[in-house]
Amino acid sequence: MKFKKAYLLLFFSLLTYHSFAQSAKDSTHIRAIYTQALQNPVGYQWLDFLSNQIGGRLSGSPQAAAAVNFTYQVMDTLGLDRVFLQEVMVPYWVRGKKEVGKMISAKYGSKEFPVCALGNSVGTGTEGLAASVIEVTSFEELAKLGKEKVQGKIVFYNTPMNPSYVRTFQAYGESAKYRFSGPSEAAKLGAVGAIVRSLTTQLDDYPHTGSLGYQLNTPQIPAIAISTNGAEELSLRLKHDPTLSFYIETHCKMLEDALSYNVIGEIKGSEFPDEIIVVGGHLDSWDIGDGSHDDGAGVVQSMDVLRILKALDFKPKRTIRAVMFMNEENGLKGGRKYAELAEENKENHIAAIESDAGGFTPRNIGITDDERGIDFYLRWNELLAPYDISIKSGGGGADISPLRNQGTVQISLIPDSQRYFDLHHTEQDTFDKVNQRELQLGAAAMATFVYLLSEYGVDK
Amino acid sequence: MKFKKAYLLLFFSLLTYHSFAQSAKDSTHIRAIYTQALQNPVGYQWLDFLSNQIGGRLSGSPQAAAAVNFTYQVMDTLGLDRVFLQEVMVPYWVRGKKEVGKMISAKYGSKEFPVCALGNSVGTGTEGLAASVIEVTSFEELAKLGKEKVQGKIVFYNTPMNPSYVRTFQAYGESAKYRFSGPSEAAKLGAVGAIVRSLTTQLDDYPHTGSLGYQLNTPQIPAIAISTNGAEELSLRLKHDPTLSFYIETHCKMLEDALSYNVIGEIKGSEFPDEIIVVGGHLDSWDIGDGSHDDGAGVVQSMDVLRILKALDFKPKRTIRAVMFMNEENGLKGGRKYAELAEENKENHIAAIESDAGGFTPRNIGITDDERGIDFYLRWNELLAPYDISIKSGGGGADISPLRNQGTVQISLIPDSQRYFDLHHTEQDTFDKVNQRELQLGAAAMATFVYLLSEYGVDK
Repeated sequence: MKFKKAYLLLFFSLLTYHSFAQSAKDSTHIRAIYTQALQNPVGYQWLDFLSNQIGGRLSGSPQAAAAVNFTYQVMDTLGLDRVFLQEVMVPYWVRGKKEVGKMISAKYGSKEFPVCALGNSVGTGTEGLAASVIEVTSFEELAKLGKEKVQGKIVFYNTPMNPSYVRTFQAYGESAKYRFSGPSEAAKLGAVGAIVRSLTTQLDDYPHTGSLGYQLNTPQIPAIAISTNGAEELSLRLKHDPTLSFYIETHCKMLEDALSYNVIGEIKGSEFPDEIIVVGGHLDSWDIGDGSHDDGAGVVQSMDVLRILKALDFKPKRTIRAVMFMNEENGLKGGRKYAELAEENKENHIAAIESDAGGFTPRNIGITDDERGIDFYLRWNELLAPYDISIKSGGGGADISPLRNQGTVQISLIPDSQRYFDLHHTEQDTFDKVNQRELQLGAAAMATFVYLLSEYGVDK
Repeated sequence: MKFKKAYLLLFFSLLTYHSFAQSAKDSTHIRAIYTQALQNPVGYQWLDFLSNQIGGRLSGSPQAAAAVNFTYQVMDTLGLDRVFLQEVMVPYWVRGKKEVGKMISAKYGSKEFPVCALGNSVGTGTEGLAASVIEVTSFEELAKLGKEKVQGKIVFYNTPMNPSYVRTFQAYGESAKYRFSGPSEAAKLGAVGAIVRSLTTQLDDYPHTGSLGYQLNTPQIPAIAISTNGAEELSLRLKHDPTLSFYIETHCKMLEDALSYNVIGEIKGSEFPDEIIVVGGHLDSWDIGDGSHDDGAGVVQSMDVLRILKALDFKPKRTIRAVMFMNEENGLKGGRKYAELAEENKENHIAAIESDAGGFTPRNIGITDDERGIDFYLRWNELLAPYDISIKSGGGGADISPLRNQGTVQISLIPDSQRYFDLHHTEQDTFDKVNQRELQLGAAAMATFVYLLSEYGVDK
């Protein structure tokens, strides 16, 4: 063997050895994170309190305020370097008395359906609203009908979520526009109300609420969700009695904006304290369930990341923040305020991870880096493989999206999505639907990724 | 460019083109399988019947007989080439009246605990059995105690399942020996009864039944499972009152062997009819739940594989059989009989796939080929990736294991395992715990793999 070749070999073995030792240290640390998360289901216990003692916590509500206090107090016991609040003004929408949705048909008599008001909708008040119904399955169909056929009617958006995708969010992405934009699109053509088929692939009796967005300079018409079984039946009745009318009574209304808070806990970085890594979820939830999966799970997992790292006495090189964002569901004021203050304070957020897809078994860490792609991170897949998670392209979340302008790498915890839309925005989103191990595995996956980011930073 | 090089290039592009066209055809077919499975949740409807109309179906019971009839009739409607039964004699164990497990303590008074007899256990009869209790956490500990300290006592195996593994079957594998072998090991040292901590990582009030195996020439002593909460409390009480005794009353017994059946549906291969691919689950279940996950799921998924392939009018090159094995839980007589007859009839079983780990979201296809390894199959990972499943090493299942001697490639559907041991062998294993999409995805994953095997065979 020539000298040069031998030298090169030595060089490469040293390199390999170094990377081997590095990786062994990381393996050990990640194993410790998982053991800590699975043996001590503290996040699960926090979620029990948040869900069962506080409950649904719409922005502005007393429950949202209680959730701010609770998470502040929890993080205050973790021995962090800093726990603080960020003031944020949020919309305060209230649902009021239980909604009524009733078909009135000369042929079939009258029948109530399971309905609920869409978030941010105006209410009909006690006088209610009755009009005949026109069914569409797309905006194109609506446009074709035109003013003449829509004027004075209730538009019924009846577009089933496509069940054939493996990843349910893909179907949600296609259908959610009818809930969000449907009411204003209908109003533009003179509709007086909107009924939207619930966003789930299941056939059941639960109406799914969720935010609508009224467009400027468009009449604000009352809008409700109808259960999928209800939508199927209403559609059938309409075919045989196109003259039927529908009565909507909703008591919801938008009150004055209210003062609320993002809640933040921080562990200061030892080497690069100015490089900040955010891990978060949203503290507000809809009111008709207790918001356990959406997004109590993300909230307690984010706090659990800090707890786990503290329990392991880990001193991160970079600063780690758990952020409980306020008002994701109907305004995103918390996420926007957080990014605004980050800019104002010239903070450098290198990466942000959001958990807002339910507390189910984690499958992937999704990453979006607009400039550099995700190659830098793929070497970590080997460390993640024993835990049945892997890195894939495409990450982010509503609350952390305003940080994207600052170049913050957008990351999401991607859990199994099969059950999410059975519960999403319904009275079924409750603590008993959360599995302890699945929830804790999500916390462990996020803690693992936060650990790696805090050790090795992001691609530069 | 030299002629030879150009020629080689042409050759490789043709090869690439061919493999590209091949893969495009496969992609299309797999997409059709998933659409069929997710849009038509027929397996889920069959499971509803099996669970809610028939219920728990221990070998030899009238419910097991009804399950044989039901699955035969279902497959008879699928337009298969053959539906047939295989006679098999099975043990017929009955639980009898609800069990009693009661602590009797001079210090704490008496208290009942949630218990149930282990499958195949002898009963105490109405007179019951009372004795003092000695707690151990391992066979080593038991051996150290020796005859002197064990004689005349009830041995209490209190070994928690390790919660820190990500894959729960790993923990089950470590702890299940106390349930299966614990009673005989205790009896060898003169114990008169055995109490085994339930096999779950959860702390709850459900006793988990399951099979014990009495050893030859060893006294058969009554054995029960106690819930994990019960085990924790009993252990605590024992620490403070080592003289306490425990009363066991069980009415279970083993009756005469009964005639039962494996149920089999077959689509004949068009090119290689003698190469058989089995897809199966077990038809029997424990009696205290309705056996929805264990293993109603595997049963209906296997039948659904045939239904899906028929619905797509797929003509397999190789023969495909769905097999509902009888008596996996407490004897494995069905699996053994199937392999015996295969040998007798000189059938060539190239591969067998078992689904017996619950109807949860599929994560992997596990493969064991003792002779050739799994490299041959890994090229299919690309086709599976859009469906969030991948091939990994290590597959098989109890029912198909007797085929292993004949060189049959052993394959398992590996679903997410987080919730399985919350339900396994308890009254909680019921239809309402099954998610429609998760179940159907398992059927789609198996149909996909059966499709690939029937097109391309196995490594030879």
